[in-house]
Amino acid sequence: MEFAGKPNLKNLPKVLLLRPPPVFTIYEPEFSQHFDCIKAYESPLPLPHFLTTANSAGVTAMIASGHTQITGVDILDHLPNLRCIVTTTAGLNHIDLAECRRRGIAVTSAGDSYSDDCAESAVALVIDVLRNVSSGDRFVRIGGWSVDGQFRLGNRLSGKTVGIIGLGSIGCRIAKRLEAFGCRILYNSRKEKPSVSYTFYSDVTELATNSDVIIISCALTDQTRHMISTEVLSALGKEGVIVNIARGPIIDEKELVRFLVEGKIAGAGLDVFEKEPNIPKELIAMENVVLSPHAAFLTHESFRDIFELVKGNLEAFFSNKPLLSPVMDV
Amino acid sequence: MEFAGKPNLKNLPKVLLLRPPPVFTIYEPEFSQHFDCIKAYESPLPLPHFLTTANSAGVTAMIASGHTQITGVDILDHLPNLRCIVTTTAGLNHIDLAECRRRGIAVTSAGDSYSDDCAESAVALVIDVLRNVSSGDRFVRIGGWSVDGQFRLGNRLSGKTVGIIGLGSIGCRIAKRLEAFGCRILYNSRKEKPSVSYTFYSDVTELATNSDVIIISCALTDQTRHMISTEVLSALGKEGVIVNIARGPIIDEKELVRFLVEGKIAGAGLDVFEKEPNIPKELIAMENVVLSPHAAFLTHESFRDIFELVKGNLEAFFSNKPLLSPVMDV
Repeated sequence: MEFAGKPNLKNLPKVLLLRPPPVFTIYEPEFSQHFDCIKAYESPLPLPHFLTTANSAGVTAMIASGHTQITGVDILDHLPNLRCIVTTTAGLNHIDLAECRRRGIAVTSAGDSYSDDCAESAVALVIDVLRNVSSGDRFVRIGGWSVDGQFRLGNRLSGKTVGIIGLGSIGCRIAKRLEAFGCRILYNSRKEKPSVSYTFYSDVTELATNSDVIIISCALTDQTRHMISTEVLSALGKEGVIVNIARGPIIDEKELVRFLVEGKIAGAGLDVFEKEPNIPKELIAMENVVLSPHAAFLTHESFRDIFELVKGNLEAFFSNKPLLSPVMDV
Repeated sequence: MEFAGKPNLKNLPKVLLLRPPPVFTIYEPEFSQHFDCIKAYESPLPLPHFLTTANSAGVTAMIASGHTQITGVDILDHLPNLRCIVTTTAGLNHIDLAECRRRGIAVTSAGDSYSDDCAESAVALVIDVLRNVSSGDRFVRIGGWSVDGQFRLGNRLSGKTVGIIGLGSIGCRIAKRLEAFGCRILYNSRKEKPSVSYTFYSDVTELATNSDVIIISCALTDQTRHMISTEVLSALGKEGVIVNIARGPIIDEKELVRFLVEGKIAGAGLDVFEKEPNIPKELIAMENVVLSPHAAFLTHESFRDIFELVKGNLEAFFSNKPLLSPVMDV
């Protein structure tokens, strides 16, 4: 049997974890077969104390999920021997990349592990908001159908103009899928991409003005924080729909809630929130909003893929081979 | 103003309606501008009596929605002057077409009016069942996210094999959209279609054996009634998902419920039911089922399209021009 018997931890390379990454819910036993997992979250010690101890024990690599900010002062100062951070997330906003570069710490990303999953989630949220799928399911379950008769009309996705913010690995997959629905694709990104034929807008407000639906699939950075502002929401307008599968703080959530409450946009599909898992209470009763528990990446298939990628990156690091998905090599 | 003033009904062509079609919820005023609508459902007379009166008054055309069976004995015997039935539905299972042909009554269909809407609904239901979208929305709304933490894993659509039953106007649009998700498409239909490259299965059980997901988008006929039988569901298997946007009785619903209750298939997305709007009570509590109130066609855009088509068919009939969407001309 492959996993029978207790591995000799002394022979396994040490990998630090501050928090259990989501992939551990399925693959912790497999990780433990390949690595000596040093779990800060299981220790009663204060974190700085624990990190100093781990450092003394020779920890050079860390698996980082999105739950903990990894900055110089809080974490890296205590780990002068750290040389590699392997992340399990699509976004890297929780890691101070400049500080890692300065210290010569390599960082790997999740690569394309979640891209198909996130893209199909985005499409599902768009159709759900336009066509009231979750709302219709609720209508049936509470018995509305047999009492009230015909359900309310939705709006057809086919033929709509969709503005995608961030045309990376996920955004491109969203565009490809929506093209098959007969949608016209516009996009905004840091730079125009000569390889695609979609119409580029350097200005997000202008993109919103010209879109029926806006989908956010960009990274959270200082530049994109609260990018979806009062002005952008006004430009999207009362027939407009917004979908966010990226990071909550890209939208000024307080303003979004106000626009929804006042009927100044038509609906929203939200997989991420500014203070998740807490969500604005105003959204709970809204029938034109679809709420998703940061689930765009949550599939058995993506977890298998990210397990393989994280394991591969760590094995490459420990055997001095090229990393599989470096965002920053050293 | 276009609709100002009361039209002179004496100058308008008479059109019989047994029940108000769904499109009347929006377009009744426009229909009444163009036609003298003879509404059986507003009369206190018994239907046969009303029909005889309408016939004497010179009714030659009828708008038919899906709510009433149109057979020789019940309806047509009372309307010997009827020459055209304009339907507002995608399916025609409620009309005795052979009897219409025998009597020289032309029948028009909804054509492609709902095809995009139904195809995108089918895709939404597939992703919803695989990725738990409606279930996730419920999880967030009842506060599960902040209490239980990470939501359960779903299954990625991209890369799955999807078997489509009925590759007509709607089925083809479903296939095109799912191809963009990287799905492999198989299909079953009355005849193999030389124009498509998807793999054809003449046997539905064999199709189910080879599919991760089955989508029903065929007509309800004597041949397709309870086509999704114990045998087909067994072939689909415990990892399999079924979606129905066609007609409820194509599935043996009692067996489907049993398979779901016993965990013998993975999930279902159902827009139609055998005795809608009544649905089997066992489905209400299931998290792996998405329930939709026969809403696949319910969009503002499809209603606009069907209004134009019904109006155009009636105008063509009354001016002896070719019908726009004949399923059976005379």
